[in-house]
Amino acid sequence: MTLTTDFGDRDGYVGAMKGVLLTRAPGVTLVDITHGVPPHDVVAAANALVDAAPHFPPGTVHLAVVDPGVGGARAAVVVAAGGHLFVGPDNGIFSLVAPRPEAVHAIAQPEFRAAAVAATFHGRDLFAPAAARLALGAPAHAAGPPVELRGRLDLPPGESRVVHIDRFGNLVTDIAGDLPAATGFRIAGQAIAGISQTYESVAPGELCAYVGSRGTIEIAVREGSAAARLGAARGSPVEVHRA
Amino acid sequence: MTLTTDFGDRDGYVGAMKGVLLTRAPGVTLVDITHGVPPHDVVAAANALVDAAPHFPPGTVHLAVVDPGVGGARAAVVVAAGGHLFVGPDNGIFSLVAPRPEAVHAIAQPEFRAAAVAATFHGRDLFAPAAARLALGAPAHAAGPPVELRGRLDLPPGESRVVHIDRFGNLVTDIAGDLPAATGFRIAGQAIAGISQTYESVAPGELCAYVGSRGTIEIAVREGSAAARLGAARGSPVEVHRA
Amino acid sequence: MTLTTDFGDRDGYVGAMKGVLLTRAPGVTLVDITHGVPPHDVVAAANALVDAAPHFPPGTVHLAVVDPGVGGARAAVVVAAGGHLFVGPDNGIFSLVAPRPEAVHAIAQPEFRAAAVAATFHGRDLFAPAAARLALGAPAHAAGPPVELRGRLDLPPGESRVVHIDRFGNLVTDIAGDLPAATGFRIAGQAIAGISQTYESVAPGELCAYVGSRGTIEIAVREGSAAARLGAARGSPVEVHRA
Repeated sequence: MTLTTDFGDRDGYVGAMKGVLLTRAPGVTLVDITHGVPPHDVVAAANALVDAAPHFPPGTVHLAVVDPGVGGARAAVVVAAGGHLFVGPDNGIFSLVAPRPEAVHAIAQPEFRAAAVAATFHGRDLFAPAAARLALGAPAHAAGPPVELRGRLDLPPGESRVVHIDRFGNLVTDIAGDLPAATGFRIAGQAIAGISQTYESVAPGELCAYVGSRGTIEIAVREGSAAARLGAARGSPVEVHRA
Repeated sequence: MTLTTDFGDRDGYVGAMKGVLLTRAPGVTLVDITHGVPPHDVVAAANALVDAAPHFPPGTVHLAVVDPGVGGARAAVVVAAGGHLFVGPDNGIFSLVAPRPEAVHAIAQPEFRAAAVAATFHGRDLFAPAAARLALGAPAHAAGPPVELRGRLDLPPGESRVVHIDRFGNLVTDIAGDLPAATGFRIAGQAIAGISQTYESVAPGELCAYVGSRGTIEIAVREGSAAARLGAARGSPVEVHRA
Repeated sequence: MTLTTDFGDRDGYVGAMKGVLLTRAPGVTLVDITHGVPPHDVVAAANALVDAAPHFPPGTVHLAVVDPGVGGARAAVVVAAGGHLFVGPDNGIFSLVAPRPEAVHAIAQPEFRAAAVAATFHGRDLFAPAAARLALGAPAHAAGPPVELRGRLDLPPGESRVVHIDRFGNLVTDIAGDLPAATGFRIAGQAIAGISQTYESVAPGELCAYVGSRGTIEIAVREGSAAARLGAARGSPVEVHRA
């Protein structure tokens, strides 16, 4: 099972969830994707999931809790997609990794939740028990009735945008990478000519564009931060100049 | 086994401890509670333990090393409480999670420590070997003679205080949560009327009080940081206005 | 298997590698040494490895990816040393933990790499598949032909230097610890008289020198940061005054 949260690295909240998981599903393998998602940043969590989750074996349960609406009206769901199961709030967090789910079920059955659920900690009392149950082999439909996903990510409109900035300051875009090598890009007033094969195609400190590990165009500064250099943010537009 | 330290995420110290644990107790399951406790902040570690440790299965060994007095006069102990075993320095780190231990033993027997103990790294050379031995099934009393705990947390006097500030800026207090819903609170000159069921009971950016995941009153700003808004710190007093 | 990277705690890159490892070597035990190495800081990664890796059981595979030259000319290697196997780029990252390797092999065989290798993410597509293969029992020489290591750490010349600054601001030097107790040190214009047994040999806030957990001289401020006090950096010279 994988875990993705915005609980950070100072509190006991991640540990509380892991304790519940190991109590309810003894021996389950727990793998952290990240707990360093910025607080309440559902888009960042969706980006971490799309980069990591597809690489796990079929049947993996992915527990994701970035949940600014905890205790409120948003539903708690199990999403089945591509042979994986995703457990978390219906707030768009799974919309990048599972844009077309095969099934979505509400978490409703008593064995999928703790006897008492704290309104501010569904990760511990609702999502972890549900994920444990799935890890023990329960099918998604055992969680509760089928539902429609309602949550949407707060993404800027259109395409040709920066959708994620990683730790290195690399700019991940939503521009599909199957473009001619001579394609150019323009961002924040800077032109980038052509698609490089590697960072080393340019000198240290220079900007380059390349097909990133997600299969889309990324913009980087060799041995530096493109985000800092360009003052770019998630949502910054990128112009594509086809050759 | 769980691990809680202030060793951070840049050095090899956590890895060194895990290597010792896996060498001495092959196959043991290692679960991080947190290694992001602020340096030397024993109170923060005690808060992480009280939030996380009780959720693990009975018999779990909890290794906790936040130890500003390493190599000095403080004792090294095994604490048995509530079906769990805690291993670490006698500096108050277990006093929230195990306020009334069933047994406390010094770590004295040679098989509970490395042959050579570096004075500045008891985590690796003393606490990890002891925790490994317990994980293999040794009882607490095998570690050494019974002792009295002497360490005390440096907590502000009285009740009705902020005892922990979490990553989200939520203020965890020591005020028991079994209060009438109309109870009011006052902190840093701001009044909060009534106990909410969830964050969504108030508008985004508004202050609210609710019964937190620990069972005590917490004060938060919906989708914001109460700590930043109120300039509150650990130890800040909170007035309770009973309805 | 252990993992050491500079991928940080916000992105999905660590999770992607773990997914590949668990897909290719089901049931392998994954232990994080650290993912908080500062971006591109090969020396910091080498320091984490030398502190942690030797404590793991013989036969452990250590996967380390701090790789500013990813996709470029540097080789991808398996290093055998002291009964352990190390997998990563040939950029000096293993030169502290394995200064005299018993064998070094290039990663060349198809079963040691993914069918398609993204030029910017060898951690996922090349090093993780190789490490998985080794964890399944393949010998180092199965990875590819023997090669010479070419990567060198960018360390300051000479000895008697600060080689690492840890989270607590302690200064780890390259001065072997087998010195008379009356040996003195001088750094940043400050004299330190004698080698202490523990931090508690001096008053809180005072400087001391002691034999650290790596066996070399360390300089610390009790309950404080020597790095901040002295304005010291990695590479700062330390004078040794033999008694």
